[in-house]
Amino acid sequence: MAVGLTGLPQLYPVSGIRLGTAMASVRKKDRRDLVVVECIPGTQVAATFTQNRFCAAPVTVAREHLGKANPRALLINTGCANAGTGEPGIEDARACCAALAKLIGCDTSEVLPFSTGVIGERLPRERIIAGLPACLANLNDNGWAEAAQGIMTTDTVPKGSSRKTGIGSHTVTVTGIAKGAGMIRPDMATMLAFVATDAVVTPMVLQTCVQTAVNQSFNRITVDGDTSTNDACVLLATGTAGHAAIDRVESAAYTGLLRSVTEVFMELAQAIVRDAEGATKFITVEVSGGKTEADCLAVAYTIAHSPLVKTAFFASDPNWGRILAAVGRAPIAQLNVGKVTIHLNELCVVRHGAPDADYTEAKGLAVMRLPEIRIEVELGAGSVAARIWTSDLSHDYVRINAEYRS
Amino acid sequence: MAVGLTGLPQLYPVSGIRLGTAMASVRKKDRRDLVVVECIPGTQVAATFTQNRFCAAPVTVAREHLGKANPRALLINTGCANAGTGEPGIEDARACCAALAKLIGCDTSEVLPFSTGVIGERLPRERIIAGLPACLANLNDNGWAEAAQGIMTTDTVPKGSSRKTGIGSHTVTVTGIAKGAGMIRPDMATMLAFVATDAVVTPMVLQTCVQTAVNQSFNRITVDGDTSTNDACVLLATGTAGHAAIDRVESAAYTGLLRSVTEVFMELAQAIVRDAEGATKFITVEVSGGKTEADCLAVAYTIAHSPLVKTAFFASDPNWGRILAAVGRAPIAQLNVGKVTIHLNELCVVRHGAPDADYTEAKGLAVMRLPEIRIEVELGAGSVAARIWTSDLSHDYVRINAEYRS
Repeated sequence: MAVGLTGLPQLYPVSGIRLGTAMASVRKKDRRDLVVVECIPGTQVAATFTQNRFCAAPVTVAREHLGKANPRALLINTGCANAGTGEPGIEDARACCAALAKLIGCDTSEVLPFSTGVIGERLPRERIIAGLPACLANLNDNGWAEAAQGIMTTDTVPKGSSRKTGIGSHTVTVTGIAKGAGMIRPDMATMLAFVATDAVVTPMVLQTCVQTAVNQSFNRITVDGDTSTNDACVLLATGTAGHAAIDRVESAAYTGLLRSVTEVFMELAQAIVRDAEGATKFITVEVSGGKTEADCLAVAYTIAHSPLVKTAFFASDPNWGRILAAVGRAPIAQLNVGKVTIHLNELCVVRHGAPDADYTEAKGLAVMRLPEIRIEVELGAGSVAARIWTSDLSHDYVRINAEYRS
Repeated sequence: MAVGLTGLPQLYPVSGIRLGTAMASVRKKDRRDLVVVECIPGTQVAATFTQNRFCAAPVTVAREHLGKANPRALLINTGCANAGTGEPGIEDARACCAALAKLIGCDTSEVLPFSTGVIGERLPRERIIAGLPACLANLNDNGWAEAAQGIMTTDTVPKGSSRKTGIGSHTVTVTGIAKGAGMIRPDMATMLAFVATDAVVTPMVLQTCVQTAVNQSFNRITVDGDTSTNDACVLLATGTAGHAAIDRVESAAYTGLLRSVTEVFMELAQAIVRDAEGATKFITVEVSGGKTEADCLAVAYTIAHSPLVKTAFFASDPNWGRILAAVGRAPIAQLNVGKVTIHLNELCVVRHGAPDADYTEAKGLAVMRLPEIRIEVELGAGSVAARIWTSDLSHDYVRINAEYRS
């Protein structure tokens, strides 16, 4: 069902990164469910994690390890989120890291663990550890596509994005993969996303880069308003591209890198929404004329989370009254309803708080039948704008989430 | 599907109130869609309305009329919400009030209009005005049950509640009806609810009574988090019961009246959730151990609005990790996850942030299969508690809201 996704684009290798996958039977047999991303010594890393207070054990351990050393490997499993598992879950995550560290000859703190899947069940650490040699056996720098498959859960398609850009006379590559289809409302973080570049970047600049890009991409999507316990977005920089190190954000090199990273992040984030559980529509919500970005986002998310708006889009029903009702209850300090104007793509449906004189049901229906629709809300209160992406709410969303564990 | 509702209870007549209904073909033929509630001169009224900034035309007109006179009649139609209709909608509502006022011989400002149905379409004022004589022809004090049917939209059952209580040596009656099944998250207001009593009450005390009762009933339910543009809760007091006027809240008479009114409001509010669109479960969310009521409600609503929690309940799946994830992302200032304990009815599933040692999947499944389930969350941060009611998210919710206008 993934709206407008037609398979993985070409994913360029990133010098210094090798990926390996295995079938470890974490939850189901005959499924690629274990991924190792190996990076060369000296690789810098920046990451953002879920803001959910019930963060998963691997998030706790990854944060701890990030504070101690640069990573030599990422260890990712699906089938079990290792969340809500208390202290035993922490020990499970550490044991898996230690096992991988021993195999590749590094310190345990140089391995970052990531898990996704069912919450509240113990991690089957023996099966994961048993699967590690198979991952290492097929490590290769063209492993991105298989790794994209290896991190899927309810995703129907693998998700990847890749860019090449010039920095000075050098070519820099940015390649990434992501997973996620439900429990999607990243909050200063993302679903699992792993992106690497061979750019030479200092740690502080890399962290700025990842946070800036995340704010315009993964932090601007919502499927169901549920923030996962396991969200993580990781940007690795191997530093093998050969250019002078990017050590400040006021530079053309940084601007170029940020643009590529943001493009990759945005393509991955939008791919998550396009593949949202049960999605039949890809919806962009743009709110302009706000006093603050917070106001614009509050209005946008109120629309994007309204089950009534989402089911109307599923039904291709131009029931714009539901959008108007959502705007009207958005938690912002002031709203002059007489200044609100709403477009669906190019079609004006509400002008200054009332139905547009030229609007007809037939025109509305023609827009609502499209697979990709932009809702534009002009508040008439200021000059700030914000944009997010979401999906509709279909029978299949309920079916998938009612059946997820069965 | 209404969970645990087996038909209207006995609805006692309220002295001074007569109700009449008609089929006016507002949107569909052969459907009771027009209701007149007539009250004797001197009837006091208190009301709360939607906080949605895009309030409907009848809400604007009703507020205006409330400021000018005591009501002689309420005029209610289904099939068209008369919302998002701008100034013409206001004129439509006024014209209908004027027509009814002329027929019963009162001032236009003594008629309060209420509408519910599709947003964004003009009110068919001619058909409503044409239906008024039929309403007046069958006005009678036993008309509550027919009026309860007359205000239904996607409701599958009519909703009513009635109580008798003693004030001094006098018997006082409180009887009410309500409608609502979707677009339910009343915010300092309610879906349409019309309640009357023959108690003798001064206006200020009556307003205090309605707001106190609303806060414990209609403002504690949610189906889909969507606040309607037309919500209204009206409490009429005809003053015919013969007791001394209740003119202050520090009196046994007020306490008795408030208890009866709150019971009626709560029964109506819960009936709305039990009949929520597609509902198969009636869910009580109780959050205790909070620092403030706002914190408790924030946690409760985050759980109640989570599509993942709601679909798990639909599936009778004891996927408590979704409840835990919702608690973890609730917008409260501080949360110590190590102190959080969660029960489903009597079953402890999470104790101090981790799975309870005695919990088993089989025990969880046994509770989740029940039609009425209580989620208890103890935050361990303070001594305040709050309780709300909600429903699950089923295939039928999507079907009903995708098909609503077709």
